[in-house]
Amino acid sequence: MAAQTVASTTDSTVNTTDRTADSPVDLGPAAALSCRECGHRVPLGPVFACEKCFGPLEIAYDFSAYDTEELRKRIEAGPSNIWRYAPLLPVPADVAGKPNINPGWTKLVKADNLARELGVTGGLYVKDDSGNPTHSFKDRVVAQAIEAARAFGFTTLSCSSTGNLAGAVGAAAARAGFRSCVFIPHDLEQGKVVMAAIYGGELVGIEGNYDDVNRFCSELIGDPAGEGWGFVNVNLRPYYAEGSKTLAYEICEQLGWQLPDQLVVPIASGSQLTKIDKGLKELIELGLVEDKPYKIFGAQAEGCSPVSVAYKAGHDVVRPQKPNTIAKSLAIGNPADGPYVLDIARRTGGAVEDVNDEQIVDAIKLLARTEGIFAETAGGVTVGVTRKLIESGVLDPTKTTVVLNTGDGLKTLDAVADTGLTATIRPNLDSFREAGLA
Amino acid sequence: MAAQTVASTTDSTVNTTDRTADSPVDLGPAAALSCRECGHRVPLGPVFACEKCFGPLEIAYDFSAYDTEELRKRIEAGPSNIWRYAPLLPVPADVAGKPNINPGWTKLVKADNLARELGVTGGLYVKDDSGNPTHSFKDRVVAQAIEAARAFGFTTLSCSSTGNLAGAVGAAAARAGFRSCVFIPHDLEQGKVVMAAIYGGELVGIEGNYDDVNRFCSELIGDPAGEGWGFVNVNLRPYYAEGSKTLAYEICEQLGWQLPDQLVVPIASGSQLTKIDKGLKELIELGLVEDKPYKIFGAQAEGCSPVSVAYKAGHDVVRPQKPNTIAKSLAIGNPADGPYVLDIARRTGGAVEDVNDEQIVDAIKLLARTEGIFAETAGGVTVGVTRKLIESGVLDPTKTTVVLNTGDGLKTLDAVADTGLTATIRPNLDSFREAGLA
Ligand SMILES: [Zn+2]
Ligand SMILES: [Zn+2]
Repeated sequence: MAAQTVASTTDSTVNTTDRTADSPVDLGPAAALSCRECGHRVPLGPVFACEKCFGPLEIAYDFSAYDTEELRKRIEAGPSNIWRYAPLLPVPADVAGKPNINPGWTKLVKADNLARELGVTGGLYVKDDSGNPTHSFKDRVVAQAIEAARAFGFTTLSCSSTGNLAGAVGAAAARAGFRSCVFIPHDLEQGKVVMAAIYGGELVGIEGNYDDVNRFCSELIGDPAGEGWGFVNVNLRPYYAEGSKTLAYEICEQLGWQLPDQLVVPIASGSQLTKIDKGLKELIELGLVEDKPYKIFGAQAEGCSPVSVAYKAGHDVVRPQKPNTIAKSLAIGNPADGPYVLDIARRTGGAVEDVNDEQIVDAIKLLARTEGIFAETAGGVTVGVTRKLIESGVLDPTKTTVVLNTGDGLKTLDAVADTGLTATIRPNLDSFREAGLA
Repeated sequence: MAAQTVASTTDSTVNTTDRTADSPVDLGPAAALSCRECGHRVPLGPVFACEKCFGPLEIAYDFSAYDTEELRKRIEAGPSNIWRYAPLLPVPADVAGKPNINPGWTKLVKADNLARELGVTGGLYVKDDSGNPTHSFKDRVVAQAIEAARAFGFTTLSCSSTGNLAGAVGAAAARAGFRSCVFIPHDLEQGKVVMAAIYGGELVGIEGNYDDVNRFCSELIGDPAGEGWGFVNVNLRPYYAEGSKTLAYEICEQLGWQLPDQLVVPIASGSQLTKIDKGLKELIELGLVEDKPYKIFGAQAEGCSPVSVAYKAGHDVVRPQKPNTIAKSLAIGNPADGPYVLDIARRTGGAVEDVNDEQIVDAIKLLARTEGIFAETAGGVTVGVTRKLIESGVLDPTKTTVVLNTGDGLKTLDAVADTGLTATIRPNLDSFREAGLA
């Protein structure tokens, strides 16, 4: 099947009826794409915006054939990666046998030491996604995009990125046998360039900032030069985004098929938080967990807090900001899913909060010192926000709480570069004693 | 139980009879310590050298009560970490419930793309230990040392290190509630210091080189100041070293309880290779895998190749070298288990080979490009040696082969710092076409 772009489907002469389409591609339980705003359905394809209202398209599933206990057994007998949830994802049933980077089934760490420090008595867990193949949650979403790219006959995988995503796309494309061509700002730090370039795909520096990179990618999608290209977070976005549901599935299964009472989730575009909510709702509808209330809390860095600011002001819309924070993986000043995040935080009884750079660094160190988990700055944001929400009485310390760490501290070493030796001594016992170490 | 040092057990007035001791500590199936050279047995304790002949002590197990099929089911029903093998390790039966960093059950990647490039037709796999909590196999061995430290009543965990081990000890100690005090050369690179210091333990720089650090640690063990201290790779070494057996267990279980025909294992001290051999032999003895031959190949860097040189010269002893290689995690010039490695390579029909720094870098890039796995320099050594052994006809490409990657490329970014952008363009389609990317 040839690559189809949003340009062709927004041509109103193509699809004029509001039909529920059976798609010729096999993406398992995925039945169609459905507009989040107006509900308009179109066949599965590499499109991301509604032809009627320009709202975001997302996957509509047909789960009607599932028996709850059979499904639970099938999942539990599945592989130790996200493909154990293949029946709930837009992927073919035989996905686990295809070459993919197979992320997921990362540790849910019972964080008893951190709980003591924060005064949490109801059970505190860290979902540690630094255990993924390229050490961030991006592996989950890229793995979905890969299977969609295969279904749609794409041969090149692409994205714009400032870090984690570039590495995730490069690694996954290499494993799955795709060409990759990733676009980044030309002046990225050398370390980040190496982490993305090592996988041998094309890594193209764009003379400009991240906005320029994004604008260029949009141009390329509409051009014949972009024919056969799957942009994981653009024309494959509806599939890509579903990868975040697996965080919800894993958390509940790892808790013994229980919903947590409270979740603290970072906000970049807001997609991850909305898909975690979607995943939890699906588990309830499928009968895999008890139907009871849960609260979702969103976490931002103060230097890029458009959703937090809107939440506190009681607004429904999000006013863009110019990011200035050490939490670079969350630095999206105009988050596409911001309004949905606000809705979810309010509907579930959660909240949105932010912490400043100093609080982020303190939280990274707190998590490392108490649980031996070295988090990326985004993990400092969620842990820091958790602490702040407990102190302000918004988060209930007597309830089961899950905090997400979405990336690895090795990728943001600069943020904690002040960490160093506690002492320097000469190689003898006298010097050791003088330093007060005995 | 008070900390007991090697000094007290080499006092010949203490243990004069060659008894098989029942130990008061509960370390599961571990029955005693046994000398690898003379077979002398002593009770389980924080000792590492034989009081009779100064040979290395290792764990002697009592596996006599196990029924093969019951054991297999118990393992398969266990957690997704090394504690699924608790019945075969020197740890109490309830180990999975204790605070530990829970490494292991890392991916065994079917490396079909790499196999094509290397001409391997019999099945090629990469055991990717970069998926461990601090991204190296050291988490496996430290996790064992933690449980021994708990059993012996130690309150401080320590080690000498130049990198991976410092981070593994820091993280594991934090999780398990031990104080940690790690010794490193004072002039280590800032990045490596941060990776070890972030966990909040004492990190002490020693004015001197790694040999000076080691010498100082030996002094400290014999001094009252070291009372209550468990040095994971010194007085806890017999327990620590057993962690490498889990690599053998996982590889066989992940192959469907089958032995691979050939394994390529890096050599630093040689302990890992000897313990993998021990693990494979145990699985055969327990009936968990079929009794058939396997070959173990050792891999070194040319710049630190004492075992490879001895192997090629037909020697039984290893002549120390002064290391000079980018594969720093393998740079042990006087490997304690060198003679045992030579014996295993020869007995199993394997070999020991080395590659130079350029071949190491090429192999890192080859693995990343084909499988999306970004390996530490040690992984470049094993992949490079695999290639060399296939080219020389020593390794049989028609047989099932498992190559170990013991660490993560993010920790040795410097080795591939020449990797960079494939092009830099202006943010428009003309510039894109001019660069020949369309
Ligand atoms: Zn619409
Ligand atoms: Zn002996």
